[in-house]
Amino acid sequence: MVNVTYDSSGSLIAYDADGAEIVYNLGDIGFIIATMALVWIMVPGVGLFYSGLLRRKNALSMIYTALASVAVVSFQWFFWGYSLAFSDSASAYIGNLKYFGLKGVLEQPSVGSSRIPALLFCVYQLMFAAITAALAAGAIAERGRLGPVLVFVFIWTTIVYDPLACWTWNPNGWSFVLGGLDFAGGTPVHISSGTAALAISVYLGKRRGYGTERLAYKPHNTTYVVLGTVFLWFGWFGFNGGSALSANLRAVQACIVTNLAASVGAVTWMLWDYRIERKWSAVGFCSGAISGLVAITPASGFVGAPAAVLFGVLGGTACNFATQLKFLLGYDDALDIFATHGVGGIVGNLLTGLFAQASVAGFDGATEIPGGWLDQNYIQLAYQLADSVAGFAYSFGVTVRHFIFI
Amino acid sequence: MVNVTYDSSGSLIAYDADGAEIVYNLGDIGFIIATMALVWIMVPGVGLFYSGLLRRKNALSMIYTALASVAVVSFQWFFWGYSLAFSDSASAYIGNLKYFGLKGVLEQPSVGSSRIPALLFCVYQLMFAAITAALAAGAIAERGRLGPVLVFVFIWTTIVYDPLACWTWNPNGWSFVLGGLDFAGGTPVHISSGTAALAISVYLGKRRGYGTERLAYKPHNTTYVVLGTVFLWFGWFGFNGGSALSANLRAVQACIVTNLAASVGAVTWMLWDYRIERKWSAVGFCSGAISGLVAITPASGFVGAPAAVLFGVLGGTACNFATQLKFLLGYDDALDIFATHGVGGIVGNLLTGLFAQASVAGFDGATEIPGGWLDQNYIQLAYQLADSVAGFAYSFGVTVRHFIFI
Amino acid sequence: MVNVTYDSSGSLIAYDADGAEIVYNLGDIGFIIATMALVWIMVPGVGLFYSGLLRRKNALSMIYTALASVAVVSFQWFFWGYSLAFSDSASAYIGNLKYFGLKGVLEQPSVGSSRIPALLFCVYQLMFAAITAALAAGAIAERGRLGPVLVFVFIWTTIVYDPLACWTWNPNGWSFVLGGLDFAGGTPVHISSGTAALAISVYLGKRRGYGTERLAYKPHNTTYVVLGTVFLWFGWFGFNGGSALSANLRAVQACIVTNLAASVGAVTWMLWDYRIERKWSAVGFCSGAISGLVAITPASGFVGAPAAVLFGVLGGTACNFATQLKFLLGYDDALDIFATHGVGGIVGNLLTGLFAQASVAGFDGATEIPGGWLDQNYIQLAYQLADSVAGFAYSFGVTVRHFIFI
Repeated sequence: MVNVTYDSSGSLIAYDADGAEIVYNLGDIGFIIATMALVWIMVPGVGLFYSGLLRRKNALSMIYTALASVAVVSFQWFFWGYSLAFSDSASAYIGNLKYFGLKGVLEQPSVGSSRIPALLFCVYQLMFAAITAALAAGAIAERGRLGPVLVFVFIWTTIVYDPLACWTWNPNGWSFVLGGLDFAGGTPVHISSGTAALAISVYLGKRRGYGTERLAYKPHNTTYVVLGTVFLWFGWFGFNGGSALSANLRAVQACIVTNLAASVGAVTWMLWDYRIERKWSAVGFCSGAISGLVAITPASGFVGAPAAVLFGVLGGTACNFATQLKFLLGYDDALDIFATHGVGGIVGNLLTGLFAQASVAGFDGATEIPGGWLDQNYIQLAYQLADSVAGFAYSFGVTVRHFIFI
Repeated sequence: MVNVTYDSSGSLIAYDADGAEIVYNLGDIGFIIATMALVWIMVPGVGLFYSGLLRRKNALSMIYTALASVAVVSFQWFFWGYSLAFSDSASAYIGNLKYFGLKGVLEQPSVGSSRIPALLFCVYQLMFAAITAALAAGAIAERGRLGPVLVFVFIWTTIVYDPLACWTWNPNGWSFVLGGLDFAGGTPVHISSGTAALAISVYLGKRRGYGTERLAYKPHNTTYVVLGTVFLWFGWFGFNGGSALSANLRAVQACIVTNLAASVGAVTWMLWDYRIERKWSAVGFCSGAISGLVAITPASGFVGAPAAVLFGVLGGTACNFATQLKFLLGYDDALDIFATHGVGGIVGNLLTGLFAQASVAGFDGATEIPGGWLDQNYIQLAYQLADSVAGFAYSFGVTVRHFIFI
Repeated sequence: MVNVTYDSSGSLIAYDADGAEIVYNLGDIGFIIATMALVWIMVPGVGLFYSGLLRRKNALSMIYTALASVAVVSFQWFFWGYSLAFSDSASAYIGNLKYFGLKGVLEQPSVGSSRIPALLFCVYQLMFAAITAALAAGAIAERGRLGPVLVFVFIWTTIVYDPLACWTWNPNGWSFVLGGLDFAGGTPVHISSGTAALAISVYLGKRRGYGTERLAYKPHNTTYVVLGTVFLWFGWFGFNGGSALSANLRAVQACIVTNLAASVGAVTWMLWDYRIERKWSAVGFCSGAISGLVAITPASGFVGAPAAVLFGVLGGTACNFATQLKFLLGYDDALDIFATHGVGGIVGNLLTGLFAQASVAGFDGATEIPGGWLDQNYIQLAYQLADSVAGFAYSFGVTVRHFIFI
């Protein structure tokens, strides 16, 4: 049973099994609940975005798939997902079933912050798992039926997302121990989902008629694409800002660089489109904004505003050119999930190794990191590379194997 | 005149008429303002949901009706609604006009929590009144013109919602005194609106052509149905989470069970559809999610995560089968408002009597309840039944009588 | 480098250059981050609203323009916009380049409140600049191409918005020093953008075919108009509520009067439409809601709920009649931006001079103002008039001149 009181200054006091006092801050708790809701609405944002890009007859299935992913992952997270990712007795690779059915996930301090309870960290992290699954499931769009997609989401989250989240954010995880910097999910969210989409595109082959009737694949509803981007950008304030796990200066800094990288990414992508094709489009703007958002994600609690401009320029540029990979290498990634999330995540991870600053990470008054190249900590780039390569290889290998087995 | 200062620890200190100190927490105030906005956006969510379900020619009127309900109820609440529901000198059945025009609703502690001011509780509760009216008004869709609908909303909120809110949440209310458990509005919001929709369907009779041209009644825009569900699910974090009236562990717990019940409800409904009709649909998913959300509403601050799975399964199942009632009993509830909100609310109220736990209610460090069957407090089920039956009977009777008089 | 710690009561303590302690409140910071996100989503709300009002072929360009305005203004604000508006060594008319590239905008207390850091005030105010630019850019709809619009947004924000924000909110600004009351942006946001739209309409002349094929200009998608209004109303809780810069009673009061003025404005506009044309429409409802919201904006932290009803009635009435100005004076303001934001802003500014109350402004425990006519401070009306006239003249003159030069 939970034992909680309010103290005279308005903080929430809980007592652990040994009777020791744990002080929670109501400002922090309220903030993380709000950001949790913001991350939730990103999932239908993904659905709307992809829905607008598809042909009309498949459009509905996409937004439906995204919402259904939330439902399946919410159950999976309750069932064993949270435990596999965040149990405190986890190995370096994966957790155990200590918190099966969320048993015992209550008033104790969370894995990520001693200032909010585990219960809150659990539901906040659930939304990260849900959006990752929705991104990966996007790759089955226009190809699969809903039933198998739901099964895929349950299994994929278990065998790909949960281990990656454990590596990255569980204090026992190998990348966490190594010193990899990933503020809001460059590897577990973006590289993993983007790479899974690549694996699925390669494994499932091209859609029927692909290449022969190219025009038929034009976006059917650009307003949905824009509206999806609106939900994503809006929610990303919660995704990156909330990853500070406290309403502190670091959360504010994350919001500033997030918005700036999205803005610069959007304009960058449009300018490349204009230079290459002599026209620009709303879809290009939206793709560029998301590229910037993906790139800044791992860095958002570590870098200053001038660096965010660079993240936008380089993220937008890299992802724009990466959309050509599917023609060069001959796979059919209709929604450019790998180009945006896979490539954007890798670029963001590496740039984090260059531009992370100890002074910015310390905005929360607690975090001490050696920083990246800018702080003369050159080895950081190697850690970022190791984390990215491992994430890519693991997600690709396990996703392909998963498809072969079923 | 309000007298307010900040103390050294950052809390807000107000002084009541006798000069006594009242300590407010800025984290709590910020949290409830945010959740108020979340509940607000549920109202257009209802409008979009119903709009998508209707034939194209009536679709716009539905979302328009929902927004107009906000406008009318906002004025009604300012005029006398808040006073009728929450005045501290209320009888067991209805309040008085003490706070007419919101006069004197200022810095004093609110009815529901001594940690936020009455002013904030007032605007938060306003949104509950607004969404209830929008749900009930949905039943006049495809039948009424806007002018009479607005008059209906003003009168119905006054004679049905305000007394029910008084019974349930005003410390003088008979159900509150009896010990009925209703965390976020099973009876005043869902049973009342669902039952009003039933009364309206019965009283207004079938739409012209109903039954003869069945196909014409297919949803005209499933994307709107999904988008409406998105706004509802998103806002429900504020509806149930904010009902803790503080950013405490109980608010977090409410968010977890809300999301889980919605998820399980959605999948349950789809599986029943598949078993019965061999197909599933996005509309079924959305209906199931809302069923789960309705069912968990009265329980959300009282039950644990495993119980939430049960609420989702039983809520989704009961509401799915309840959609057949309109064929069995021969009324024309086009939008299944009674099946979802009426039946879902009753199921949720009763399950609360079974699964409410004193330990979970105590997550806020203050609430002491005897719990339900799980805590061997068997009488609780009778209280829940009494509350549900009274809410059903009152809403049905008064709504029908209202229509007969005008 | 920022030096931050948490104290025992859970507040955030920063140290300025001299080592003096600055106490921040986590509840306030979390609240302002959330309201910042709410203001952000108003910008696509503007885009959707205008998109729905236009002919189909131009609809997409409108929502795209709004989002692109966010991108350009985000960069402008980082580049020099924030510095031009809010540098502490500003003149009475405009700031300097002290904070170019956001250099040095960190842990020091913000211009508007000593309880949140400058970093947070900066990103919150950025969203005000972005929505103002999106409103003004709406006037080029159906006329311009995107490229020039983006250049316009960068320059217009620099030469019109930034000086106006400096006058109004920078403690050095002439209107601030004079004692003008503008809580959330009657002059810098609404009068400036509405007047710019007027100037653009006059300067750019009528759209081809205007007047001869009137019917073709009917709204193409009323649902988008409604959805845009939903985002605007939803976000306005952050726009007005957040302008208290703390989760205090004044923020709550601002939310109450905002919602009430919107509601009454919407119904007022509908009733005028019904009286004049014998019909009412969803577009009328939405226009009325926005009129009420605009009118209450400068007053929202200064007036009580009964006054908000008057703001709604007078704002809705004035803006409704102002839509006829374009026919009387012969300019082509297709989206009625001047009628809604220009006239609504002026009406709101003047009513603020009548109804501002010292007691309401003191809800935050700090603000001391002499109030308006209701408090026998008759001179306030003159200050409000001076501020409005100056804002109108400056925005009109500079916007026209800007167009002549390019």
